[in-house]
Amino acid sequence: MAKMVYFDRVATALLAPEAKKAVANFMNDSVGNPSAHIHSAGIAAGTYVDKSRTSVAGLINAGVNEIFFTSGATESNNLALKGFLSEKNSGEIIISEIEHYSILDQINNPALDRFDIKTLKVDRNGLVIPEKLEEIITDETVLVSVIMASPEIGAVQPIKEIARICRKHGVTFHSDATSAVGYIPIDVKGLGLDMMTFSSQTLGGPMGVGALYVNSTISLNPLFDGGNQEMGFRPGTENLPGIVGFGAACQAISPMMADKSSRLTELGRKLWRGIEENIEHIEFTGHRESRLPGHVSFWHRFVEGESLLLHLNMKGVIAASGSACSSNLKGSDEHDLRASHVLTAVGVPEEYCSGSITFSLDYYNSEDEVNYVIDILPEIVHRLEAMSPVYEDYMKQREKHGR
Amino acid sequence: MAKMVYFDRVATALLAPEAKKAVANFMNDSVGNPSAHIHSAGIAAGTYVDKSRTSVAGLINAGVNEIFFTSGATESNNLALKGFLSEKNSGEIIISEIEHYSILDQINNPALDRFDIKTLKVDRNGLVIPEKLEEIITDETVLVSVIMASPEIGAVQPIKEIARICRKHGVTFHSDATSAVGYIPIDVKGLGLDMMTFSSQTLGGPMGVGALYVNSTISLNPLFDGGNQEMGFRPGTENLPGIVGFGAACQAISPMMADKSSRLTELGRKLWRGIEENIEHIEFTGHRESRLPGHVSFWHRFVEGESLLLHLNMKGVIAASGSACSSNLKGSDEHDLRASHVLTAVGVPEEYCSGSITFSLDYYNSEDEVNYVIDILPEIVHRLEAMSPVYEDYMKQREKHGR
Repeated sequence: MAKMVYFDRVATALLAPEAKKAVANFMNDSVGNPSAHIHSAGIAAGTYVDKSRTSVAGLINAGVNEIFFTSGATESNNLALKGFLSEKNSGEIIISEIEHYSILDQINNPALDRFDIKTLKVDRNGLVIPEKLEEIITDETVLVSVIMASPEIGAVQPIKEIARICRKHGVTFHSDATSAVGYIPIDVKGLGLDMMTFSSQTLGGPMGVGALYVNSTISLNPLFDGGNQEMGFRPGTENLPGIVGFGAACQAISPMMADKSSRLTELGRKLWRGIEENIEHIEFTGHRESRLPGHVSFWHRFVEGESLLLHLNMKGVIAASGSACSSNLKGSDEHDLRASHVLTAVGVPEEYCSGSITFSLDYYNSEDEVNYVIDILPEIVHRLEAMSPVYEDYMKQREKHGR
Repeated sequence: MAKMVYFDRVATALLAPEAKKAVANFMNDSVGNPSAHIHSAGIAAGTYVDKSRTSVAGLINAGVNEIFFTSGATESNNLALKGFLSEKNSGEIIISEIEHYSILDQINNPALDRFDIKTLKVDRNGLVIPEKLEEIITDETVLVSVIMASPEIGAVQPIKEIARICRKHGVTFHSDATSAVGYIPIDVKGLGLDMMTFSSQTLGGPMGVGALYVNSTISLNPLFDGGNQEMGFRPGTENLPGIVGFGAACQAISPMMADKSSRLTELGRKLWRGIEENIEHIEFTGHRESRLPGHVSFWHRFVEGESLLLHLNMKGVIAASGSACSSNLKGSDEHDLRASHVLTAVGVPEEYCSGSITFSLDYYNSEDEVNYVIDILPEIVHRLEAMSPVYEDYMKQREKHGR
């Protein structure tokens, strides 16, 4: 198999053919700046933005005026928290302990020192227990933010139940749904969300564009000063090619999403079973059922995740170790070798936390690709085990005890 | 002439063929998230970013580590001011009175109440007088920000002289060079700039991407919390297609820029003279010589700019009235009918300030297009004059006085 097997959808999906075509068509149309309402080239540009907004809103059952385009999920998460909190003087914020760095680092930023931060623990499967939220939410709570699905361990949270508790207490609820949108059915109204972050790149659109859903009852301050774009929430000329591709990707996913997503779930289960049945010393992470379709994550007791990835890569298979976004040393290009806070949260021993593997499949992946990975993985693991002194010790112990 | 004559480069240039081709090629390459250093798809993505950064830096003689990609000029302006000022407790900020809204609105934001704001006046031609800066700069001044070239009136500022004064006083100097980069030669080192904002869309690259040049001696705080992208200055997955197109546009402009720019200056002068010689009651704005190549801006004493634009548009000509970015009513889609602060600054009577016309030509424009506009403009003006009650009064007065 010379072709690349790309199983890193949660870092970024490959560009969907529909998105590629839409961007290429857009680039052949000579349009102006959408803010130049005064001439036909500007009006033509505005039409592209409107059409795309309708497609994006449609995928999550939002009103078109509740979708604000941003430069991506990081900006959306920053707009949601900074934009919402900038007018509050104090109070409590509750976040889960497995948030993305673009939430976590905001909470740790001294700029939010005026708020009390409470952390919502997850269980061994990476799931928030709604009753725990009931226990810690108070009249002082101003905002709850819980990631909808973890890119690292795949766990899908009981968002509807969390939203119900927030609503009951009159607390604004934001969810970072970057890994979830387009892969699990999301109805922002039915779920009761106040704000929701998502991005284009994780669902087959171009990198560099995202959106924030903001329920029309919620008021935010923009992060930038300047023009009136995105109804004043997000000044700056719109990323038109990005927005066009984002809309096309959403529109491509919408029809029969339930069917496509079921097939992806099956592919993921097949990969999970293939690994489970053929490789020893594996520990899967996240919940077996309540997880992203096509997402399989695990760690191995004797083999380093990074080595495993490099060997997979040499065989044409692209997968992730932890989160692609976990590189977090400001002002440095080095890797972040700290243990992932998500893995420690679900009880993975710290010495294994830099070594987890995440396969995230997409609609374009095939059963052949899954079979290929199931075929080559055991041999790679065995070769690496043979190089592991810890594994050698373990085998000696096992022989001694006659196991 | 059925084809569109696009003379609104400062709002957004049409996509350069080189940028279009580079983005299309990029979209056919299956690359991952550049932060996924661990696998070949991520490394391939990073290579695209590096190559582009080199092209962008080369156009302005910056170091590659001094270029930070953003979502556009608005974000760059916000990063420059907010990022630089967030660690200062007090002091004075000096800006020119003809800044873009993404500078002006930051200065007017109550978040900067701890600073004293001083405004640098411009003369009738829209030029800052460096001696005036010498008069108002003090030991308390922490930042000076002056736009390099006004998109509205085309005036190009004496940036080197302004930078020299700032350096002499140890004051950090930022310039918004969005309309200038790619059209006038810029050497950030030779000019003595500390920070410079520019964008892709105004020089033939895609919308939705820009850059901030930050001299390696300057320290900024990022606007977003999150990942380590752009050396920590700008967390969030990079806008890869945008960055690729931006780099290609810079690379296409670099060779023989002086020649191309001279030709554009000639085209602009031809248009200026054609208007001057064939149309009465015109007042040009900005400086006749110290201006953007191919930029012609004026107002007419009896004809509304917007009407003129609509009639031009019906004949296939795209031009601007004031700045495309002047729409500035937060939370509303309506036009901003306030007088442009740039036009009032250069002494245009307030009642005419919503009615100026800006032609901004680009390298792709031809002499035929200029001749076409010179041909059709007088007739349009005469038709509109005939409908103007003010013009009727004026003509009656003129006849009465035998002029």
